[in-house]
Amino acid sequence: MKFLPALIAIIVLVLPLVTQTASAQPVYKWRLAMSWPEGTPMLHNAAQRFADNVRKMSAGRMNIAIDAPGKHKAPLGIFDMVRSGSYEMGHTSSYYYKGKDPATTFFTTTPFGMNPTEMNAWYYYGGGLALLNKVYAKHNIVAFPGGNTHIQMGGWFRKEINSLKDLNGLKMRIPGHAGEVVEKVGMKPTSIPPGELYTALERGTIDAVEWIGPANDEKMGFHKIAPYYYTGWHEPGAELHVFVNKKKFDTLPEDLKTIIAVAAKETSLDMLSESFYRNTLAWEKMQKEGKVKIRTFPKDVLDAFKKANDELLTEFAAKSPEAKEVIESQKTFLAKARVWTKITDEDYLKLR
Amino acid sequence: MKFLPALIAIIVLVLPLVTQTASAQPVYKWRLAMSWPEGTPMLHNAAQRFADNVRKMSAGRMNIAIDAPGKHKAPLGIFDMVRSGSYEMGHTSSYYYKGKDPATTFFTTTPFGMNPTEMNAWYYYGGGLALLNKVYAKHNIVAFPGGNTHIQMGGWFRKEINSLKDLNGLKMRIPGHAGEVVEKVGMKPTSIPPGELYTALERGTIDAVEWIGPANDEKMGFHKIAPYYYTGWHEPGAELHVFVNKKKFDTLPEDLKTIIAVAAKETSLDMLSESFYRNTLAWEKMQKEGKVKIRTFPKDVLDAFKKANDELLTEFAAKSPEAKEVIESQKTFLAKARVWTKITDEDYLKLR
Repeated sequence: MKFLPALIAIIVLVLPLVTQTASAQPVYKWRLAMSWPEGTPMLHNAAQRFADNVRKMSAGRMNIAIDAPGKHKAPLGIFDMVRSGSYEMGHTSSYYYKGKDPATTFFTTTPFGMNPTEMNAWYYYGGGLALLNKVYAKHNIVAFPGGNTHIQMGGWFRKEINSLKDLNGLKMRIPGHAGEVVEKVGMKPTSIPPGELYTALERGTIDAVEWIGPANDEKMGFHKIAPYYYTGWHEPGAELHVFVNKKKFDTLPEDLKTIIAVAAKETSLDMLSESFYRNTLAWEKMQKEGKVKIRTFPKDVLDAFKKANDELLTEFAAKSPEAKEVIESQKTFLAKARVWTKITDEDYLKLR
Repeated sequence: MKFLPALIAIIVLVLPLVTQTASAQPVYKWRLAMSWPEGTPMLHNAAQRFADNVRKMSAGRMNIAIDAPGKHKAPLGIFDMVRSGSYEMGHTSSYYYKGKDPATTFFTTTPFGMNPTEMNAWYYYGGGLALLNKVYAKHNIVAFPGGNTHIQMGGWFRKEINSLKDLNGLKMRIPGHAGEVVEKVGMKPTSIPPGELYTALERGTIDAVEWIGPANDEKMGFHKIAPYYYTGWHEPGAELHVFVNKKKFDTLPEDLKTIIAVAAKETSLDMLSESFYRNTLAWEKMQKEGKVKIRTFPKDVLDAFKKANDELLTEFAAKSPEAKEVIESQKTFLAKARVWTKITDEDYLKLR
């Protein structure tokens, strides 16, 4: 009978230790708020792919539930929701938050700037990723590139643009920094909710509309009423981002941290590939229907856009030392990169 | 005292079950044979990066030890070593194994074929990855794209090439399928070990040499003796591959399978970025030294290369139904993709 207390003591003391070892790995049930409506081609897919891969690679130790704006009501409020921790994660794009911090703007894309291959070289080897996290650490966010739209188109116009003066007074749906660029050359950028764009264009409330590319544009039906489709200059590969609340990220075990980082990077490549693929098919279909007239803006228009963009970037760089650092870092890298791109990507596409 | 046997029984029966749960996850100590010599820029980095990410994401449950050819002695024998299981994994490139199976050839790159962005769209959305594994399953290998050199240069020439007849009888180090293409137009492709290339070029044993791109070529010193550097046509973004012995892969738990797949894809993007970045810097340095003359092959040369390549692809497609399937799949996708590339990547680089 004298062994009994000792045995009970062993069971009471040892068993929890052993079972704790077995279940030492807690399960994280995290929530992700995305900027995109439920079912948006490519964009929702990218968020879902990221969450699925994290769950699979962690053997279910991290489960991420995705909420669309229909639930969280703030498509452009992901920054605040992740910063405060009301969501542990977000899938969005950095340039929506220039009102929060001007330095966040050009992590998405820069007019006349880097294409996706150059952007990735800058992010992963040219100091971009370190800068991204220098900027976001101040806001309690860890950020990762996590999706790319490929080079976006310049938009749908009801009338052909033959010179700069044809743009004068033209009303166009084109948001953000690019909207400021076109305003500087005499256009009138307007803000209209997506659901009303087709009617606005049809009735002439606006003369032109910039959206994304064929795979997303096709469903909007713009090509039926504004047949001039201009090639892109303003978003040469918009990068999306995975946001993680920094305090919560810092408490994760190292394996989950790496799983998140690698899953985000895989998603970036995957969405670029899906965007390219779907645009290819949608563009083929649009061409068969035979109503779209593809155009590149005339030289005087492009020169005016470039000049306005350069001036705005200079103004923008004055807003914060970090905004300046981002702009300068991209500019310095692109100056070298474009020389290499010229004799490889550009030369190859011409000779092929 | 009557509780004692019951307590002992509980301890004997329950404790092993609990500890087994705690240690149920075996540690895999796997070996990877790579084709690249120890320390090769980009290429060895890519293999190491893949192994490091797998180890980190699995919290050490999969440790991959990398052997270079200095150890395994068979840089172009990775296919056999992984097939047989003497190595569980390999890092190599599919086109080295056309002697084993002609269908493996064009998973790396195709002359005048897809650039890296198009190639990724084909792999991940255009059926390429499924075809890759259809071909490799027969050889007991699971294969993943796992690194990209970016668009390679066309090589170093001692004399300028002004027309097709300047190529007649020219001796050039250019291996594989591209070697067959140049042979068809009158050149003499030769095989010379890397260590002897500089001397062979200096002494005129060969007239030209194709290697990779500035970051790798610079160390070879070719630009000092063959100043004409031609732009690329034959390897518009060579993809490397991670091989895994299929029988062993199939025994892995699902989380490790996904970890391997995602790590390989991340490595593909990362090496493309590193290649782009390092080539950009090396090319800047070469240009400053002022000795390199950049040239694009004249139109009659490119036309002859294209014609010879088309003929060889047709001959090649006859070698096996699967080789034909790969060639046709790429051709069909590229026909659509190049139309989209033309109004995005190509147009953008011209107008930027």
